[in-house]
Amino acid sequence: MSPPCPDRALVRVQDLTPDKADQLIWLRARVHTSRAKGKQCFLVLRQQQFNVQALVAVGDRASKQMVKFAANITKESIVDVEASVRKVEQKIESCSQQDVELHIERIFVVSQAEPRLPLQLEDAVRPDGEGEEEGRATVNQDTKLDNRVIDLRTTTSQAIFRLQSGVCQLFRDTLTKKGFVEIQTPKIISAASEGGANVFTVSYFKTSAYLAQSPQLYKQMCICADFDKVFCVGPVFRAEDSNTHRHLTEFVGLDIEMAFSYHYHEVIESITDTMVQIFKGLRDNFQTEIQTVNKQFPSEPFKFLEPTLRLEYTEGVAMLREAGVEMGDEDDLRSEHLARTYDTDFYVLDKYPLAVRPFYTMPDPNDLKYSNSYDMFMRGEEILSGAQRIHDAQLLTERATHHQIDLEKIKSYIDSFRYGAPPHGGGGIGLERVCMLYLGLHNVRQTSMFPRDPKRLTP
Amino acid sequence: MSPPCPDRALVRVQDLTPDKADQLIWLRARVHTSRAKGKQCFLVLRQQQFNVQALVAVGDRASKQMVKFAANITKESIVDVEASVRKVEQKIESCSQQDVELHIERIFVVSQAEPRLPLQLEDAVRPDGEGEEEGRATVNQDTKLDNRVIDLRTTTSQAIFRLQSGVCQLFRDTLTKKGFVEIQTPKIISAASEGGANVFTVSYFKTSAYLAQSPQLYKQMCICADFDKVFCVGPVFRAEDSNTHRHLTEFVGLDIEMAFSYHYHEVIESITDTMVQIFKGLRDNFQTEIQTVNKQFPSEPFKFLEPTLRLEYTEGVAMLREAGVEMGDEDDLRSEHLARTYDTDFYVLDKYPLAVRPFYTMPDPNDLKYSNSYDMFMRGEEILSGAQRIHDAQLLTERATHHQIDLEKIKSYIDSFRYGAPPHGGGGIGLERVCMLYLGLHNVRQTSMFPRDPKRLTP
Repeated sequence: MSPPCPDRALVRVQDLTPDKADQLIWLRARVHTSRAKGKQCFLVLRQQQFNVQALVAVGDRASKQMVKFAANITKESIVDVEASVRKVEQKIESCSQQDVELHIERIFVVSQAEPRLPLQLEDAVRPDGEGEEEGRATVNQDTKLDNRVIDLRTTTSQAIFRLQSGVCQLFRDTLTKKGFVEIQTPKIISAASEGGANVFTVSYFKTSAYLAQSPQLYKQMCICADFDKVFCVGPVFRAEDSNTHRHLTEFVGLDIEMAFSYHYHEVIESITDTMVQIFKGLRDNFQTEIQTVNKQFPSEPFKFLEPTLRLEYTEGVAMLREAGVEMGDEDDLRSEHLARTYDTDFYVLDKYPLAVRPFYTMPDPNDLKYSNSYDMFMRGEEILSGAQRIHDAQLLTERATHHQIDLEKIKSYIDSFRYGAPPHGGGGIGLERVCMLYLGLHNVRQTSMFPRDPKRLTP
Repeated sequence: MSPPCPDRALVRVQDLTPDKADQLIWLRARVHTSRAKGKQCFLVLRQQQFNVQALVAVGDRASKQMVKFAANITKESIVDVEASVRKVEQKIESCSQQDVELHIERIFVVSQAEPRLPLQLEDAVRPDGEGEEEGRATVNQDTKLDNRVIDLRTTTSQAIFRLQSGVCQLFRDTLTKKGFVEIQTPKIISAASEGGANVFTVSYFKTSAYLAQSPQLYKQMCICADFDKVFCVGPVFRAEDSNTHRHLTEFVGLDIEMAFSYHYHEVIESITDTMVQIFKGLRDNFQTEIQTVNKQFPSEPFKFLEPTLRLEYTEGVAMLREAGVEMGDEDDLRSEHLARTYDTDFYVLDKYPLAVRPFYTMPDPNDLKYSNSYDMFMRGEEILSGAQRIHDAQLLTERATHHQIDLEKIKSYIDSFRYGAPPHGGGGIGLERVCMLYLGLHNVRQTSMFPRDPKRLTP
């Protein structure tokens, strides 16, 4: 099959450089801005983060009517233009293509935008506070999210979500190289394995079901089924009524689970190395995107150590107390203090008190007050929670009973370990949090294309 | 951080070859079978699809007690053994490692399996009908699925899901190379965009929401937001009470959407080329997995053409009528007849009658009875449905009205196209169906790790 071969190939804006000078080309782009001035109309034509200046001028090639037509094309409309590429004497500072402009000979509207835009792209990318004295607007987050299809066209949004796509790819490529297998786990489940709090209920034909709060049980079943090392990328659902900068009711989980030989630190090492590969890949391949986001939201470059810093929970608590932070022995531990002390934006806290972790967490065999569990932090905020899991049905039953969990409800979970299960551990990472914190942003809704929280279900 | 370095490195079964002869090694594996015979105990030790024969014999290295201990280890238990590798004179036909056996000196049980297994692995991989005269059992599908954690250990299951992991990777790698961006779309949505049939309802705090039947609206919004070419991989939910070999209520959608320059056949070409790259990648890199599955479920190798065969719907109907198949002009068209005629297991049917397609499908500008839509078929069964989408808000409103769809409910969908939208099209592929049909299997539950249908929500 060969699709109809058009007699006019479309050129990309980013390819408009002086070596195309004096060529006649076809281009499809959005009208970013338009400004009529006497017998001329200046347009800026945009494709994603790239734009170029274009000119329609009354003369041999264009009539007065055509200039008027061009001047009346609404912003954000999509046009096809035939134009000759011209080198310019003076760099066009306001465009990505600074060395050329287009002299338009023909122009067609492919798709017309309504004249009143719900938000202006230039307002949506203005850094907070900038241009306030001139009365220039910024756009608040709800307006951006309500009109996401326009907000996503900004250079900032394009950069954020291209980087996010990169995080997923780096995560999978690193793990695939390490011998991990990708699995697909069900999101509709019959029982809420962790007791039923914070779980969404689904009507399922004549019965009820739930949305999975994590793929953990299924990852573990795959380990018990000899897949050895697995990962999955998929939605995770939390019916938590938390209206904070870091909580979503639906987010993308990057999940890892693996059997280990002798010590659960093998798992920590696999996960931290995966994170380091992601950080390096972003630093080396997404510098343009990082710089673009920084223009609107300035932040320090993300710092990490090799090997990754690992502290025990008690050390962390002691350090914070010394620094004057008040906290109990079993308090949740989040702090930028540790990051500053060690000059790293990524570290692991290991050996949490057993009492604060879920029932399936393996107790520390050397001190039953603690557990073989860990959290990982970026810029002082938690991005991963993980642990060695109990792989013995009897111990699991004891711990569930201790937590007063209804054994009947977790029977199939416990039964998974009755037919030989290797020691294993893992963890789950929130994609949106990783992107937010890597870029030094302050709200997880900025790194979720279509965020879901207790108050937002649209678009 | 360096995890405790054990003084004994574990060897993989697949690496047990004659070049390791007379070495003393440590190995962790499952007890696949065990057979005591006088002063000896023969074990087969298994890791995934690989296994090796091992021997404990009364002598210098092993006591009578140790042989007895080994003989009593239950099948599927996980053991650590220290053993010397020995070359064998005669190939061990029943094992994957045919040239060596292990002489065990020490053996520890890492995790003990309960003595009564709910199914036997050798029964679960037996081809239908084989060994019936000797009274050998096969295992029915519900028993397999009820005990999935054991069933997934079989060579057949290991091969199916490693191949499935490969399909996802090939899909993404091919599209990434073509310049597509991966997106993450929400699964909890506020309105059922296609009218509300076959949609699961979710309790969402004090209101109700739905599970997305496809990521289509969100893919399209990304096109309207200048991402140009996007793909996503994620769960898709259908509240359809269909109990067939090819329907699941939750499956994994491989979704594509792209802007095109001049003709929607550019989209068909991108999708069919992606499929061809997947078929080639599987053929070239997953031959072991294909052969393994074929042992239990024999099938012909998957045939495809380059370029992919594309027929118009009316041509297909005419051919079937000629072959004596009775059907109306607007009947859904699935048939192995076309595949046989053209000697290909993969083809496209193009230009479906407008009346049988959803409201957002672009009518054929040359004949309004038809539409710019297509289905793709593997071994005669549909695996993808797609189309050029209407990108004009006014035409979309007219078509929705014609379909008697409540405009209020799809307002945000229609509004997405009001601010400039390029011509675009796409489609969604069912991962489980692609794997089933590529391998010539006959039930989509075989290619879903934890299938969901109207009657199955567990494990």
